[in-house]
Amino acid sequence: MADNKKISVAVIKRLPRYYRYLGDLLNVGIVRISSKELSEKMNITASQIRQDLNNFGGFGQRGYGYNVEFLYNEIKKILGIGKEYKMIVVGAGNIGQALVNYTDFESNGFKIVGIFDVNPRLIGMTIRGIEVYDADKMEAFIKNNEIDIAILTIPKTQAKATAKKLVECGIKGIWNFSPMDLELPKSIAVENVHLTDGLMTLIYKTNAVLDK
Amino acid sequence: MADNKKISVAVIKRLPRYYRYLGDLLNVGIVRISSKELSEKMNITASQIRQDLNNFGGFGQRGYGYNVEFLYNEIKKILGIGKEYKMIVVGAGNIGQALVNYTDFESNGFKIVGIFDVNPRLIGMTIRGIEVYDADKMEAFIKNNEIDIAILTIPKTQAKATAKKLVECGIKGIWNFSPMDLELPKSIAVENVHLTDGLMTLIYKTNAVLDK
Repeated sequence: MADNKKISVAVIKRLPRYYRYLGDLLNVGIVRISSKELSEKMNITASQIRQDLNNFGGFGQRGYGYNVEFLYNEIKKILGIGKEYKMIVVGAGNIGQALVNYTDFESNGFKIVGIFDVNPRLIGMTIRGIEVYDADKMEAFIKNNEIDIAILTIPKTQAKATAKKLVECGIKGIWNFSPMDLELPKSIAVENVHLTDGLMTLIYKTNAVLDK
Repeated sequence: MADNKKISVAVIKRLPRYYRYLGDLLNVGIVRISSKELSEKMNITASQIRQDLNNFGGFGQRGYGYNVEFLYNEIKKILGIGKEYKMIVVGAGNIGQALVNYTDFESNGFKIVGIFDVNPRLIGMTIRGIEVYDADKMEAFIKNNEIDIAILTIPKTQAKATAKKLVECGIKGIWNFSPMDLELPKSIAVENVHLTDGLMTLIYKTNAVLDK
């Protein structure tokens, strides 16, 4: 695996999309593809594709294009997909439940093994066979089950304190759906999903389209 | 409102975040802020902030900083927030239900007024007082209720055909949670949310942190 340290966040954010498109090509039996063809499918420029993939040593051959399976597997390795990651969901509300029910994660090796909440009405129920535990038990559970990732779907007011506790328990990555940015030590990976931000961007785009 | 046409997508995607931070500052009574202070709060450089806001004519004064309320209101206008947008959710599954229950949208003027599904077990039920209608009725509903935005939370296999139908009905913006990119006419605004892509980015970051 190449030295990751200088790869920009923008490139990294595009890799799952390459992975998804290449997976679709593999599924329909396509063996190789040029950056031009891939560019038309993905709606980004061929030069951007070549530049992105050059970050990881290229993998393309002039006049031949990319070997789909090889490229797919390389990106898979780069992303670190292919082994199992254990996740917990913290917050068994609507978003938390929807994520537990989202089976696409598991097919990629991302397995939700526990759900935590403070609400007595939710504790003890199971979602897709996974039990909702009392938040008090979270710390021991993380340590005993070697949890990699915590998915945070709790209200804004509790997000900061809970994230702090997760870090203390040794969690290395937090997928944050709470509507606030988390300030955490640099040793913790965080990916924020701000649903309302996405909707506002769409509203802007919709108005921009209408203005034309 | 400034001419939007040359503003990069990256800048636009950051505007909701500015809006969120400025709203928080307003809520705690802060009247003005320098780009340096804002930069420390938001964890982006002061020069990036000045550059971003210059796209819209600046709003800052040297030695004074930004007037929080003024900047908040300007970004609000730029994004097109402040009036009511009517939305429908297409797909009353887990993600669809979670989005209907996500009250943060409504407090920003984004109002879900109808939900559609093909599943007879879901049709007729109400979620937060909003009825799930038969997908057959979608076309008439969009026209009669002047719907602005459709939130698509249906399986990949049906996403393309449904998006096409939405466009024919006159929808101007689609917020797509289906795990595929939509190819639509340039006159339609689309914002894709690929949950698994976000999780893969987090996995990459987590491994990158561990490699250090």
